[in-house]
Amino acid sequence: MKAIRTSFHRWLPSAVALAVWGAVAHAQTPATQAPKLKLEQIQPTPVEQLPDDHLGRLIRYGKELTERTFAYIGPEVKDPAMRYAGNNLACASCHQAAATKEYAMPWLGVAATFPQYRAREDDISTLQDRINGCMERSMNGKPLPWDSREMRAFVAYITHLSKGVPIGAEIEGLGTVTTRMPNRRANPEAGAKVYAAKCASCHGEDGQGRRVGQPGDAQGYLFPPLWGPDSFNTGAGMNRLAMATRFVYANMPLGASHGNVQLTLDEAYDVAAYMLSQPRPEKAGLEKDFPARWNKPVDAAFPPYLLANPDQHKYGPFPPLVQKQQQMKAQLMEYARREQAASGAAAAGR
Amino acid sequence: MKAIRTSFHRWLPSAVALAVWGAVAHAQTPATQAPKLKLEQIQPTPVEQLPDDHLGRLIRYGKELTERTFAYIGPEVKDPAMRYAGNNLACASCHQAAATKEYAMPWLGVAATFPQYRAREDDISTLQDRINGCMERSMNGKPLPWDSREMRAFVAYITHLSKGVPIGAEIEGLGTVTTRMPNRRANPEAGAKVYAAKCASCHGEDGQGRRVGQPGDAQGYLFPPLWGPDSFNTGAGMNRLAMATRFVYANMPLGASHGNVQLTLDEAYDVAAYMLSQPRPEKAGLEKDFPARWNKPVDAAFPPYLLANPDQHKYGPFPPLVQKQQQMKAQLMEYARREQAASGAAAAGR
Repeated sequence: MKAIRTSFHRWLPSAVALAVWGAVAHAQTPATQAPKLKLEQIQPTPVEQLPDDHLGRLIRYGKELTERTFAYIGPEVKDPAMRYAGNNLACASCHQAAATKEYAMPWLGVAATFPQYRAREDDISTLQDRINGCMERSMNGKPLPWDSREMRAFVAYITHLSKGVPIGAEIEGLGTVTTRMPNRRANPEAGAKVYAAKCASCHGEDGQGRRVGQPGDAQGYLFPPLWGPDSFNTGAGMNRLAMATRFVYANMPLGASHGNVQLTLDEAYDVAAYMLSQPRPEKAGLEKDFPARWNKPVDAAFPPYLLANPDQHKYGPFPPLVQKQQQMKAQLMEYARREQAASGAAAAGR
Repeated sequence: MKAIRTSFHRWLPSAVALAVWGAVAHAQTPATQAPKLKLEQIQPTPVEQLPDDHLGRLIRYGKELTERTFAYIGPEVKDPAMRYAGNNLACASCHQAAATKEYAMPWLGVAATFPQYRAREDDISTLQDRINGCMERSMNGKPLPWDSREMRAFVAYITHLSKGVPIGAEIEGLGTVTTRMPNRRANPEAGAKVYAAKCASCHGEDGQGRRVGQPGDAQGYLFPPLWGPDSFNTGAGMNRLAMATRFVYANMPLGASHGNVQLTLDEAYDVAAYMLSQPRPEKAGLEKDFPARWNKPVDAAFPPYLLANPDQHKYGPFPPLVQKQQQMKAQLMEYARREQAASGAAAAGR
């Protein structure tokens, strides 16, 4: 117990973290009034059919921003004050089909799930926080002001995609698939071959994607760059191997879906590792992410490395790390229980 | 038509306003996936029963802020940086029962109704905008930063009070009752008598309420001041006579409710007029409210006075103004139709 206490004590300021952990563990339990929904039950009105009023226009602008982010808030737009994104990706580069495709991190129903606890901040995030999380990581840029027209448009679009969804609902098909990772170190060299065979025709041999126009014209990409200076940074969720594998597995190459995968899980795992073995912009301050530590994902491959060496956190194998993490949690829980009991006994003895 | 055009043209920049009007007129139509709900169908978990986790604590802080606003962000709190409210009211001074009482502007389900079009801004408001509307008017203060813990807490509490409510739902029992106003000028002198008989015992002969402690101790009021320096300012919704009448009618004196009114409508109308005839803090720049003008409420008694003299906009009678406003809208609509037809013909002739 003492060793655990010494090494983990600074991440466990109080019994508070324990309570949070309990809450997170039960986050899947449906609330009294919050039903479970399948993604296909959410069928928002096409934005083109919305009236030409303030809300309709704002929602349509939100969809436009999602699909052509580079043209409005990208690094090449004319007005320097509007250059919030640091790369020429679009939100829809990952959030496919204007953020309506299942297991491609869709936004359907998402407005009904915020504010929510986020491990990365170990705090409650609003929808605006979450959007700015993407702005600073996947878009390698800076946060949108919360009261800007662009932030309002994203919120309005996401809320439109959530119309009819009960607040607090659990939704199947959000995020990525939950497939378990292969129990081996990923093989980037094998992934390079998968890449050449299945990915390079769109994303380029050099992974730099295919631009629509010329650099500087803010027209973005037909197929996005997967690494290099114009791609997501090291703080993005997509920079985590299990996350990237799950995304690739259910969504790549173009045409693939959850119900119609086109790569084996091993291919997805290796090709994702190949992608993540390439250089990309560095996000500063990553050691501040997941401040509670005990809920830091095992594939978040930046310091502090809690369970293994950097290579294993980056390339796996992950199942042993997941097991270690569960043991660590159980030990922390036991430690916190004893602390509480001891302080209770001390209080009684006073 | 010409007279209308001349006098109203600056309020009707384009056919856009017309579209907005149409949208507002149809705002009551249920969306495909957005059902109608009665307020009593929304039964949030008591905040005391929420877990001791980040979200539970934030929601509880939101309720605390609602009931004891003065103690956290009032003008008498120790930290000057936290003095966002300009008076010692609580949100719950008007939003009774911690914002859960029907027709006392409850927050039940309200998170499911934003972003929404607001006439006062003639634009789409988020929940944060709306909260800050209260901060700058009813609370006579300054806006909370959108990413402050206090704003997050309000959003979390309102979202908690909306759990299970489908986004976009129509909810009966929100806002105030829609009772029609008496067709006469309100009589503040008669209202003074009602006040003395039914209100003064709580709110004081001088309308200054009853403090819990001493000025400067940030302990707020047992019963809030209804006018004077520590009350809502002239920009508050409560400073509009029809609005105040509806609130008073369904909620005053203490114990009254929609189903159990304790004043006649005439008494409520007159006593509200008496309250609004008293001095209170001035909100600067009110002439910028309701920039579309055609949807400025007839009881918004500040310049520009569109339909009658200031006295009638303040004290009524309102039914003739409502009728005038409807005629004005119909004329504007007709004018916009002709403009569109004319510009269509001109385009065809080119």
